[in-house]
Amino acid sequence: MTFMNMPNWLKQRAFLTPDRKALVFENKTWTFAELYNETLKKASLLSLSGIQEGHFCGVLAANRPEMIFTIQALQQIGAVAVLLNSRLTTEEIEWQLRDASASHLLFDSLHEKKAAAILGIRSISISDDLTDARFTPRERCSMSEICSIMYTSGTTGRPKGVIQTYGNHYASATASALNLGLHVDDSWLCTVPLFHISGYSILMKSILYGMEVRLFEKFDAVAINELLQNGEATIISVVSAMLSNMVNRLSGTYSPRFRCMLLGGGPVPLSILEQCKQKNIPVFQTYGMTETSSQIVTLAPEYATEKLGSVGKPLFPCAVKIDGEDEGEILVSGPNVTPGYLNRQEANESSFQDGWFHTGDIGRLDDDGFLYVLDRRSDLIISGGENIYPAEIESVLISHPAIHEAGVTGVADKKWGSVPAAFYVAHHPVTSEELAAFCGEKMASYKVPAYFVKTGELPRNASNKLMRRELAARWSDDHAH
Amino acid sequence: MTFMNMPNWLKQRAFLTPDRKALVFENKTWTFAELYNETLKKASLLSLSGIQEGHFCGVLAANRPEMIFTIQALQQIGAVAVLLNSRLTTEEIEWQLRDASASHLLFDSLHEKKAAAILGIRSISISDDLTDARFTPRERCSMSEICSIMYTSGTTGRPKGVIQTYGNHYASATASALNLGLHVDDSWLCTVPLFHISGYSILMKSILYGMEVRLFEKFDAVAINELLQNGEATIISVVSAMLSNMVNRLSGTYSPRFRCMLLGGGPVPLSILEQCKQKNIPVFQTYGMTETSSQIVTLAPEYATEKLGSVGKPLFPCAVKIDGEDEGEILVSGPNVTPGYLNRQEANESSFQDGWFHTGDIGRLDDDGFLYVLDRRSDLIISGGENIYPAEIESVLISHPAIHEAGVTGVADKKWGSVPAAFYVAHHPVTSEELAAFCGEKMASYKVPAYFVKTGELPRNASNKLMRRELAARWSDDHAH
Repeated sequence: MTFMNMPNWLKQRAFLTPDRKALVFENKTWTFAELYNETLKKASLLSLSGIQEGHFCGVLAANRPEMIFTIQALQQIGAVAVLLNSRLTTEEIEWQLRDASASHLLFDSLHEKKAAAILGIRSISISDDLTDARFTPRERCSMSEICSIMYTSGTTGRPKGVIQTYGNHYASATASALNLGLHVDDSWLCTVPLFHISGYSILMKSILYGMEVRLFEKFDAVAINELLQNGEATIISVVSAMLSNMVNRLSGTYSPRFRCMLLGGGPVPLSILEQCKQKNIPVFQTYGMTETSSQIVTLAPEYATEKLGSVGKPLFPCAVKIDGEDEGEILVSGPNVTPGYLNRQEANESSFQDGWFHTGDIGRLDDDGFLYVLDRRSDLIISGGENIYPAEIESVLISHPAIHEAGVTGVADKKWGSVPAAFYVAHHPVTSEELAAFCGEKMASYKVPAYFVKTGELPRNASNKLMRRELAARWSDDHAH
Repeated sequence: MTFMNMPNWLKQRAFLTPDRKALVFENKTWTFAELYNETLKKASLLSLSGIQEGHFCGVLAANRPEMIFTIQALQQIGAVAVLLNSRLTTEEIEWQLRDASASHLLFDSLHEKKAAAILGIRSISISDDLTDARFTPRERCSMSEICSIMYTSGTTGRPKGVIQTYGNHYASATASALNLGLHVDDSWLCTVPLFHISGYSILMKSILYGMEVRLFEKFDAVAINELLQNGEATIISVVSAMLSNMVNRLSGTYSPRFRCMLLGGGPVPLSILEQCKQKNIPVFQTYGMTETSSQIVTLAPEYATEKLGSVGKPLFPCAVKIDGEDEGEILVSGPNVTPGYLNRQEANESSFQDGWFHTGDIGRLDDDGFLYVLDRRSDLIISGGENIYPAEIESVLISHPAIHEAGVTGVADKKWGSVPAAFYVAHHPVTSEELAAFCGEKMASYKVPAYFVKTGELPRNASNKLMRRELAARWSDDHAH
């Protein structure tokens, strides 16, 4: 199977089904022909601003059409999109741009101020428009070429750029279609961030499937419930905080046309799944990560009860195994799995072995082959769908002059599922407010610990490794009713 | 996109959706778990008979479940299926088996006699069964590995083995799903031969999609109409002779669940398309060939009227271009296109250039990019969905002692679309009956010319090349009303 002449995706889609609806945002609609046209205008702008094939470009923008046109325009040029979480601080963004050797930073009008504070890089506003599109798009698309980069942290606390190739996105979209099916009247509601793989992958599916996307700038449970009730959207990707919000506000049921509530982004309280069952909501629980270019394991609704708590079975071209007898690290493989981290030889050597990606998560498989995720990788905290790495927060905390050492763990939170709590040993007196302000300067606000707990010493194992699960246990003991 | 750990397809399917229906034949049904079990039994039989990974095995069988189990069993072993057209003569089959260096010939009870006449190869009956399945299937499947071989002829008259890799079949099935969609309740009716790519590709889709196949041993317009009317099948692959037969017998309409009449295998009389339109039959005209592992260009029903006579636009990952200014040879590319012919260096060099496969067919693209096939490759005659190559018949004819030279062309036929007509220059007197009998010994009966026309000389161009189109024109003149 060689993709020697794989056509330019968006051009091919606009050629195959020009008049199908591609995008709906607020009261506006774009067909694939129109989307292509807007994309060429944006590509023309970017190209005139000096962006060329092979350039890495930061994208700092809200979930609005111009972000989609920009992402597509970069693909037309053959430049790589480095998707930036818009909640990151300027320092964090600068670090990622530097790490990716990005040539340009593309920002929309909503992020003008933040972009202006980012130094040492050429910035281009994507809210400007050119009237004529003189840009000549590429004819071909190479499956091994890098399409997008998304940063994810790890145990060391330094974010790593996950490489996603065109081939990864193609494999992910087709594998998802083999699992969820594909209807000509599908419309996928996108209220998850486009800078996350959950949102970005919807865009790729839209082009490859010829499918409508209904884009939301912000999550709005009432408006979304309405669309799902009148059957205007047939699929939606959510994290559990969204789902909970939607279900609590739902009176009646969703339309029979609504066929898939794709639920990802971490653990799900069983009570929500029960509520969904009562309301006949077709929930597909999934397990996936930036490194797998979206879902890699999915639980079909018919198993929701029998296999409660499981995230399901792998997508068709993928495989899952456990590194260990019964419980152990979850290893995954498949054509949607990243070829590696950008310029991280050491991490790549340890994470990719014999074609298997070591997720760092702990799980087990039952006798029928259903996967249960027991513990998230590297003490990962998933808070409202955002990944937070304790090590990253710890390294910020110990840079504060009053702090001797620090340990961070996730603690249960009604609204966000989990939030970070920091335990610290201090040299000098310091207040929680001072520490929160200090963290807020250096990190996105969702990463700032919700709690700061002063302690005499941190739990460490024999090899002096911080035992974050002990911190979590300590917290539970202290906060048990 | 690497498929390093692509799981064993059927095993993966039986693991993912064991209880879904896989196959319906007459009054029997097999789930994917059951299909897998039958396959392992067959694999056990074949393996004990000496078939190993890498062997090439001829398959001579009717459209019955044991043929499916055998095809799947060969995949489990990692042996290559050489699909034999059961209408071929023993001489033709022997030639193909020798050409493929086949190690074994697998035959069902209906082909026992024919198989017995084929010498120089170890034959195994697939109608025998083992009760215990001790076979250990492969864990992995490599996308570049050869899965199947199907012979197709060409201008030289010597059939060539078309290599179809696992990757070709995977790409074909996913590209088709991107085009036709994929519903969880789909059921694909297979009445086309499994030894042709039209039938074989349905099996591959079944495994990759988790989709039911309704298998028919023989085409039966009444029974098939009934299934399409009661909505038990949602998709069917047909050639125009079948469609015509079905439409003529249809009273009323098909079920709204029936969503795709996939029409391939050559030119279609416009009158049939008109009839289908009147009866609201969702006809998808296609263009494809053994070398493209099934369809590569398809016309959606909404364009059936506006683009009457066109075969449509390429599947998403594929491309079509014309070698010439306006009309010219049709070149295609895509991940479903064969890597080449088995052991045919010369043919491969001329047919594959810069990633494009030269089909030999002549066509043009309109301004919207719709493909029109103007003339079939190498004067190919398509008769009831079977490909017939004039050169092959001519070489048989000139081996008759009475024949000096011969030219064959396709002429219109009400039932089969087209049938071969032979023009010949004779040394000695010979009757049509004698010639028909002579041909019948050496070739499958569908290749035997329907008409033999004695002539003084054959039309040749300046370089003495036979002009078969002139023969066709002569025939038309003589048979005009």
